Amino acid sequence: MTAAPETIYCCVPLSAELMSDDEAEATADLFKALGDPARVRIVNLLATTGGEPVCICNLTEPLGLSQPTVSHHMKRLLDAGLVEREQRGKWAHFALKSDAVEKLALVADLKGVCR
Amino acid sequence: MTAAPETIYCCVPLSAELMSDDEAEATADLFKALGDPARVRIVNLLATTGGEPVCICNLTEPLGLSQPTVSHHMKRLLDAGLVEREQRGKWAHFALKSDAVEKLALVADLKGVCR
Repeated sequence: MTAAPETIYCCVPLSAELMSDDEAEATADLFKALGDPARVRIVNLLATTGGEPVCICNLTEPLGLSQPTVSHHMKRLLDAGLVEREQRGKWAHFALKSDAVEKLALVADLKGVCR
Repeated sequence: MTAAPETIYCCVPLSAELMSDDEAEATADLFKALGDPARVRIVNLLATTGGEPVCICNLTEPLGLSQPTVSHHMKRLLDAGLVEREQRGKWAHFALKSDAVEKLALVADLKGVCR
C-alpha cells in the first residue's frame, strides 16, 4: 500500500486573493529563510558572482563565519529552494537557484501582477 | 549639547554590490517582519482591500486571532515600515504604506536592477 502523495503548498504573491493558511505558511517560510543577516549576505554574495557555483571554502572568509555556521545557513537556504548544491570533490559548491529570482519577485509582489 | 544624529541603514537589493553588515541587517529585518504566517496574511488582507485603511476590529475575525495578537503583529509591521496606522475614534486603522510596495520589490530584486 502506498501513502497518498502529500500536498505541497507553494508560496504565493502577498497580493494574492484568498490566500489559504497553508499558502501563508509557505510564503512566510520563504521570507523567514531570508530573515537573517548572514543569509542575506550569502544570497548577496551568490547574486554578485555571475551565477557560477561558489565553493563553501570561499564563503567563510568574506562572511567572517565558521564553516559549520555557513553550512547551517546553507541548509536553510537549500530547504527554502533558494540555492542549489553541487559536490565537487571534497567541497560543496553553491549557486542561486535559477527560479529563486522569479520565486522571490513573485511573493514580494504587492501589485497583484503574477509574473 | 545634542547627540550626533544616528545613522539609519536602509534595506538594499539582495543583488546589491558590496552590501555592508548594517545593510544586511536592515534587509534581514524587513524579511523577518514577513517571516510569519499571520503577518503574511495581514499584508495579504491589506493588499486586497484596495488601499483603504482597515479597522483592526475587522481583522481579528478573518485572521482567527485575538485583538492583542493582531496588535502585536501590527506593531512588527509598523516597525518594518510596511504599514501605516491611523486612529479613528476608538479604533486603530491600518493600511499598506505606499512605499512598502517599492521597498519590498527592491529588496527581493536579485537581478540587480534598482527600481
